[in-house]
Amino acid sequence: GVEKKILVIPGDGIGQEVTTWGQKVLTAIAANYHHKFTFEEGIMGHVAIEATGDPLPEETLQKAKNSDAILFGAIGHAKYDNDPTLKVRPEQGLLKIRKELGLYANLRPIKLFDELLEASSIKPEILRGSDILFFRELTGDVYFGEKKRTEDRNTASDLMIYHRYEVERIARKAYEAARNRRKKLCSVDKANVLEASRLWREVMQEVAKEYPDVETEHMFIDNAAMQLIKDPKRFDVVVTGNLFGDILTDEASQIAGSMGMLASASVGDKTGFYEPIHGSAHDIAGKGIANPLASILSAALMLDISFGLKTESQRVIKAVEATLRQGYRTMDIANKHTVNEFIMGTDAMGAKVLENLN
Amino acid sequence: GVEKKILVIPGDGIGQEVTTWGQKVLTAIAANYHHKFTFEEGIMGHVAIEATGDPLPEETLQKAKNSDAILFGAIGHAKYDNDPTLKVRPEQGLLKIRKELGLYANLRPIKLFDELLEASSIKPEILRGSDILFFRELTGDVYFGEKKRTEDRNTASDLMIYHRYEVERIARKAYEAARNRRKKLCSVDKANVLEASRLWREVMQEVAKEYPDVETEHMFIDNAAMQLIKDPKRFDVVVTGNLFGDILTDEASQIAGSMGMLASASVGDKTGFYEPIHGSAHDIAGKGIANPLASILSAALMLDISFGLKTESQRVIKAVEATLRQGYRTMDIANKHTVNEFIMGTDAMGAKVLENLN
Ligand SMILES: CC(C)[C@H](C(=O)O)[C@@H](O)C(=O)O
Ligand SMILES: CC(C)[C@H](C(=O)O)[C@@H](O)C(=O)O
Repeated sequence: GVEKKILVIPGDGIGQEVTTWGQKVLTAIAANYHHKFTFEEGIMGHVAIEATGDPLPEETLQKAKNSDAILFGAIGHAKYDNDPTLKVRPEQGLLKIRKELGLYANLRPIKLFDELLEASSIKPEILRGSDILFFRELTGDVYFGEKKRTEDRNTASDLMIYHRYEVERIARKAYEAARNRRKKLCSVDKANVLEASRLWREVMQEVAKEYPDVETEHMFIDNAAMQLIKDPKRFDVVVTGNLFGDILTDEASQIAGSMGMLASASVGDKTGFYEPIHGSAHDIAGKGIANPLASILSAALMLDISFGLKTESQRVIKAVEATLRQGYRTMDIANKHTVNEFIMGTDAMGAKVLENLN
Repeated sequence: GVEKKILVIPGDGIGQEVTTWGQKVLTAIAANYHHKFTFEEGIMGHVAIEATGDPLPEETLQKAKNSDAILFGAIGHAKYDNDPTLKVRPEQGLLKIRKELGLYANLRPIKLFDELLEASSIKPEILRGSDILFFRELTGDVYFGEKKRTEDRNTASDLMIYHRYEVERIARKAYEAARNRRKKLCSVDKANVLEASRLWREVMQEVAKEYPDVETEHMFIDNAAMQLIKDPKRFDVVVTGNLFGDILTDEASQIAGSMGMLASASVGDKTGFYEPIHGSAHDIAGKGIANPLASILSAALMLDISFGLKTESQRVIKAVEATLRQGYRTMDIANKHTVNEFIMGTDAMGAKVLENLN
């Protein structure tokens, strides 16, 4: 067995409720396969601001740097959304940890479980068979470019900026993945308008030459947002910048039936960072109805990508599949028109997955 | 009857094929209702670069400024998409004319014709009854902020920037429209990350106070991209910045069955500018299969918004509706599963609408 140090950061809102299930699944896997996972806990986001004034306390950052992998929940709180003038904000914690850990590649696999074919707003015949792997650049773009506000507060700006090396390294990661999949890569930009996108496209075209076995396509973001819904099956690997990736992957959650099903892996220098793509969802936080599957599938991604434990990772995915096949659903993936479904809360759903793991 | 000067700019790709039908419809309306529309023609985009070296020749700009309204087709060409290093680009023409004419508000109504309920990739029960009016800010944002490329060509940037007055004026236009509709307004931004979005949200919150009868909601762009597909009926008026509006409205085309159905109106200082939201679509250009309905519906918007001719505008919409009811379809809105549809090319489809107009 392997020995690994895992930092758990539940964060805000439903992060608190779902992350415990990702952790329980990791614990069960360790027991079943004789690995030794030791867990620490850290705070980040609104809860960290409340406790320390800092959305990413130094202590959490140090623990993060010393861990092999991080299981993260969610970040954000209505208070800040309603008051855009607040200076200290939860999201700064997430952005800072991404930057500090060098997590430049965010992988978001979008795959529909057969059992959820009817849970989406998109027609089943459009969805069936779709399987997309997004590579979202995560430490550049308008997210990290200089932010300015004039003294009279009447003008505000953010710099959308990309450097060649940033595009190159995410391009390579995406092409390597495409090679091991259906050998199709779609790069998304807005090169007809943006200079940063023209650099993006130039670099992609160069890197493409190193991967002649992969079929490359370039698409404008507006068209991509449309094609994703119109014909998701046309995509295999999609690679794009930070902002466009944020938008496209949330949109793509409809392909998987619900945001509550989607996990992501952020990788780069060393420590991997695993999180559901759903946010803190303050509207349902504390109600015990959030879907724990995205956190559980984030744990599965951790096993695979950070620890190289493919068998264990597959075991988790199979347990999720089995749970869905048995008809268990959280509210977000329930289908009004079906009779043999059992709607349950976060903990009951998590417990079913655990049962199926054993 | 009224007298109006209309500039027709077919532009590139399928713009050439479809715009003629928007113009024919305007001519027919003038004859039926005893108005006098005089038409001029102008060049812009790739065709203008080929002819003059300039994507927006001074002559076209002067004609534009002297006209009461402009019917535009599309812009763009594969040549430039494939070579991001080219300095002179078709899209510069479109961006310049938007700026020069002060077209800061881009209205994109998204409404499904009942006959096309089955043409979309989204389930009919999700779509039925959706009716969204987008207000996209059109002369600010990262589209017009300073663009830079370092001398070594390894770093590229675009400034995402908003000024208070820009947000205020589009906010008012959107709220006025919401007042005359279902009194719901959703403002879309990324205020949890971007300073420009925080200004956007602050100003929206201020203007909201002047419209207490309208229910205001603020949504992050990633969430909006998802909600639009999950539950389009929740939206009435949506107002957003230039870049987010570009993305969301293309995505929203799936609500209307096809991009080929969507018209837009750009208004501001004086002259209105009317265009389909589909682009030049080089893949099908010259084949005579493009859908002329977006151009025809753009003409309908012109009659309504620039000329105040509501009856005439409704007449055009009714003719489009009748054409669809008779089963006539272009390829993009055809439904494989239906037998009583007649698939036709651009000209045959346009001719059917003209017939239904008389
Ligand atoms: C919370 C927010 C800062 C974050 C982002 O925009 O990156 C989230 O939406 C995500 O996708 O991880
Ligand atoms: C052609 C392009 C510059 C344009 C835009 O991005 O504004 C188009 O996509 C649109 O939506 O009108």
